[in-house]
Amino acid sequence: MTTTGISRGSIEARMIQNPIPWPNGARCACVISFDMDADSLIHIARPDDAHDRLYPISMGRYGPNVAIPRILETYRQLGIQQSFFLPGWCVETYPKAVEAILEGGHEIGHHGYLHEDPIEAPDQRYWFERALAAYQKYCGGKPAGYRAPVYNINQEVVDLLVEHGFRYESSMMADDIPYRVETAKGGFWEMPVHWGTDDWPPFAHYAEIGYMMPVKAPSTGLGAFWEEFDAAYEAGGFFMLIVHPFLTGRLARWRQVETWLEETLRTKDVWFARLDQVADHLDGLVARAEYSPRVEKLPYYSGPQGG
Amino acid sequence: MTTTGISRGSIEARMIQNPIPWPNGARCACVISFDMDADSLIHIARPDDAHDRLYPISMGRYGPNVAIPRILETYRQLGIQQSFFLPGWCVETYPKAVEAILEGGHEIGHHGYLHEDPIEAPDQRYWFERALAAYQKYCGGKPAGYRAPVYNINQEVVDLLVEHGFRYESSMMADDIPYRVETAKGGFWEMPVHWGTDDWPPFAHYAEIGYMMPVKAPSTGLGAFWEEFDAAYEAGGFFMLIVHPFLTGRLARWRQVETWLEETLRTKDVWFARLDQVADHLDGLVARAEYSPRVEKLPYYSGPQGG
Amino acid sequence: MTTTGISRGSIEARMIQNPIPWPNGARCACVISFDMDADSLIHIARPDDAHDRLYPISMGRYGPNVAIPRILETYRQLGIQQSFFLPGWCVETYPKAVEAILEGGHEIGHHGYLHEDPIEAPDQRYWFERALAAYQKYCGGKPAGYRAPVYNINQEVVDLLVEHGFRYESSMMADDIPYRVETAKGGFWEMPVHWGTDDWPPFAHYAEIGYMMPVKAPSTGLGAFWEEFDAAYEAGGFFMLIVHPFLTGRLARWRQVETWLEETLRTKDVWFARLDQVADHLDGLVARAEYSPRVEKLPYYSGPQGG
Amino acid sequence: MTTTGISRGSIEARMIQNPIPWPNGARCACVISFDMDADSLIHIARPDDAHDRLYPISMGRYGPNVAIPRILETYRQLGIQQSFFLPGWCVETYPKAVEAILEGGHEIGHHGYLHEDPIEAPDQRYWFERALAAYQKYCGGKPAGYRAPVYNINQEVVDLLVEHGFRYESSMMADDIPYRVETAKGGFWEMPVHWGTDDWPPFAHYAEIGYMMPVKAPSTGLGAFWEEFDAAYEAGGFFMLIVHPFLTGRLARWRQVETWLEETLRTKDVWFARLDQVADHLDGLVARAEYSPRVEKLPYYSGPQGG
Repeated sequence: MTTTGISRGSIEARMIQNPIPWPNGARCACVISFDMDADSLIHIARPDDAHDRLYPISMGRYGPNVAIPRILETYRQLGIQQSFFLPGWCVETYPKAVEAILEGGHEIGHHGYLHEDPIEAPDQRYWFERALAAYQKYCGGKPAGYRAPVYNINQEVVDLLVEHGFRYESSMMADDIPYRVETAKGGFWEMPVHWGTDDWPPFAHYAEIGYMMPVKAPSTGLGAFWEEFDAAYEAGGFFMLIVHPFLTGRLARWRQVETWLEETLRTKDVWFARLDQVADHLDGLVARAEYSPRVEKLPYYSGPQGG
Repeated sequence: MTTTGISRGSIEARMIQNPIPWPNGARCACVISFDMDADSLIHIARPDDAHDRLYPISMGRYGPNVAIPRILETYRQLGIQQSFFLPGWCVETYPKAVEAILEGGHEIGHHGYLHEDPIEAPDQRYWFERALAAYQKYCGGKPAGYRAPVYNINQEVVDLLVEHGFRYESSMMADDIPYRVETAKGGFWEMPVHWGTDDWPPFAHYAEIGYMMPVKAPSTGLGAFWEEFDAAYEAGGFFMLIVHPFLTGRLARWRQVETWLEETLRTKDVWFARLDQVADHLDGLVARAEYSPRVEKLPYYSGPQGG
Repeated sequence: MTTTGISRGSIEARMIQNPIPWPNGARCACVISFDMDADSLIHIARPDDAHDRLYPISMGRYGPNVAIPRILETYRQLGIQQSFFLPGWCVETYPKAVEAILEGGHEIGHHGYLHEDPIEAPDQRYWFERALAAYQKYCGGKPAGYRAPVYNINQEVVDLLVEHGFRYESSMMADDIPYRVETAKGGFWEMPVHWGTDDWPPFAHYAEIGYMMPVKAPSTGLGAFWEEFDAAYEAGGFFMLIVHPFLTGRLARWRQVETWLEETLRTKDVWFARLDQVADHLDGLVARAEYSPRVEKLPYYSGPQGG
Repeated sequence: MTTTGISRGSIEARMIQNPIPWPNGARCACVISFDMDADSLIHIARPDDAHDRLYPISMGRYGPNVAIPRILETYRQLGIQQSFFLPGWCVETYPKAVEAILEGGHEIGHHGYLHEDPIEAPDQRYWFERALAAYQKYCGGKPAGYRAPVYNINQEVVDLLVEHGFRYESSMMADDIPYRVETAKGGFWEMPVHWGTDDWPPFAHYAEIGYMMPVKAPSTGLGAFWEEFDAAYEAGGFFMLIVHPFLTGRLARWRQVETWLEETLRTKDVWFARLDQVADHLDGLVARAEYSPRVEKLPYYSGPQGG
């Protein structure tokens, strides 16, 4: 019932248990990661007639055709490179967007073939490697990272990532900052996601795929993200948006993101980077024994629990 | 990690890739489009007993009987004409509302017959032409434009629009500004919609049709729209509301819309217009080779994707 | 594109087409109507095991046992009388709450027997009259008014209301202000409801009955109501809350309602009244030919539409 | 229509009918109760394949591994002890979190075995006592209190609580402040919960368990809680949060909770306590005849209602 009298700063310093030292002493790492799903979402959800559903197709096409050029132009002017995740089918279907992303110095990561949920799709090896072939053909090499559609990674995918030498994964939530996932055959960096920095809850309204959120105002939806940033910045953490061109790349929303980016770059000491660059940095820290990450050992369980 | 020092304005100038020059140099075009669905929504959703569901019928009737006169009076005083979309059944059932809309110099567009979802309704030619007959009888001619119920336009409807010489369509989302949809047999202007300027997410609470949004305060729901306007205005774009008399025409909401309209007309350089006038303007620009619109070629796909 | 220069007030004056003159020239009539459903909601939704579902039962019991005394005390101190709607089963189960409500000079209206949805309950005469018997036994007479559970009034109930001489009904939404419902055999006043002044959307979170709203902060949920009041007040209209003791009677919410009531009573010219008093006033206006209400003729339809 | 002129304070004084005198004259009792469910939620919801659903498992593991140390550190610095509820399976699976909680002087209560809903789980004695064995092994004794998973307590659990001598329960909502639940064989204190102080509605977004809320900004979600506190404080009541480490223990949210705790401890006269300490205090009041609690007699009903 009595206050301790300790100062605010001393408590905050412990908000993150093992903070990562960022390049050049930056206080926070910041990644705007875009999942460019385009109309893959409707094709996977409604395989029989999706090709005739013109409204969701057009909603998805806004991403590669309108939002991606806008986003890339902002990044070009601000001089930053970021990470994009594309389903293999989108890589094949929207090669101009792929080309523009790569030209800007950005990174393209693996995001399934047709945005199929790994938990629901029986043969992950087939879909995973089909997508990989698309990346290799259009992006000139293997991706460094992976994000599972609807975050639904399973052990089969974890094993595929290790087998194919992926450097990082970004679908899990066990920490605020990057950590290691290790299996018996190898591991990778986990770049953790969170529903508080995902634009699906504030902006997605998509009856055809069973996802009906009450659309928030741009300033309300994005304002929630900036509160997450403020906390990450104070704590010296890692701030990653998981956003989508057809949602956050819309005119009114992107205008506010752009303003925030300009303001943040001007006033804060932040390291904006691609996720593969974050992985590079972390590898370097470990190699130089300057940092010891938290490790999650997988698989978590050998079978059903509570029996 | 360094700011570029470029000024705010120079970035904004590129927010829209190929901005449309509006009449008299107006900075933004603005359309308040109302879908007057009245009680068609419950009749199509619950065909067996909808006629005995007095609460949703009364909720729908608020549109033609209370909201439409209020909206038209506002428009009359402000001296603007706008676009209304009505299902054919509503045209037949609420002829006084139709008459008042037309008397005010407004436009009535095609919106299906009983608000049937084209994807779900087997024979679109039957419903489409039955609605057309209602328009021709009550509105004195063919409509210039079409909006699909629940935005669910498909290729069959696209072909019907081309066959019947429609000048514009308004159910798709592939851009922020009007664009061309072209098929082998002809095309039309697309006046794109967006969930961020639709009043269904902020205000519709309608268990009987399976659409349950948490109702926002008038200022919160409408405030999201005005943020969209601000972005469109800054970028020199196109701002269209897709709203409904029984929702946005309610007393507390319309009072705020009216105030916004007065304020915007007084302080901004905006072109308020009907969608057929927007189509006129765009046709003129193209005829005079002053503008080259983006084109979406339809059909998008010949069959299911990802197989 | 030009402003009309008309003053704000002149537009507002027309927001309501045929405003009702209120007693003593009050600018607005105001009714806080409470539906005291208690645990009837879970018994009707889960008839087999509801009696063993202690959490929803306890949530419902908060109404008659904690919220009702609090609400009545506020009304007593402020000197106002209001309307309560109770299912017949609640009248029988919570007689102390009934007694306290009546002692305060408030009105109790008909609200079904066990909150059964008339559209779903096959024999409305049975349930309607069973509830009526409960009112007559515990409330000392027939109720003057009726509100359908979940607003789902149908023609059978309308006919029962006429047959039993009810003076008003309050489940429909065809206008902002009271209007007449007329059938071949007689009619009643309709005291119209609206989802924008109902506390179900902002505050109800009730998985067991399939109604899951994201709970708003007291000031956010109630703030939306006060915006509705402001509009009704400006327009000289009718402001009615449709709220529930177990939701709006909660401590933090009621404290804000109470503050609003005090402030409104002190600063505004409002007529707080019971709905039967509103009906009295309207009858008087009509008898003295001082007002001609809008009329909705029922039944609306003789059968399914759009066939 | 006239104001009564009574002062604000005099009304507030009656907001709670029988306020509890708190230790040392504190104005309000305050409990931050955490339900540390970790990944039990996914195992119970998806028993067949939950062990392979790595995203929800990782989301749950954030609780014991990241949030719990953060929360405990805050409590340590502020010098407060609080209540945690853990399913038995979590006690067995996360012994380090259990140890750290107990070391901090906090309390661990019963929360089912695998977060099984009592209404759905056929044999409550089996699950209840299996959990009890886990507590006795890892926590060194019987818990003093119980909270039902998803609040779904039934009469069988009530009887088990009485049989096992539990001192309090915390899943019901019949009042704002602690009250007695009494059965023929004995009773316990009820520490009432409420959806307005539960972090599930503002922050939980969990498709796999069928619970999809639009995620609020930290300040919006928590701000609603603080309004509840303000009301409880003014009324001299009881303020309890029912929150979860994987939700409210997230970085941006906990930072705001911590700030609120510091501010409240510094500026308000509040008794922060564990629920078993609240029970101690209440027992003392009753023993000294200084307080007479409201009593709810159970079972409420002997069978289905309204038949």
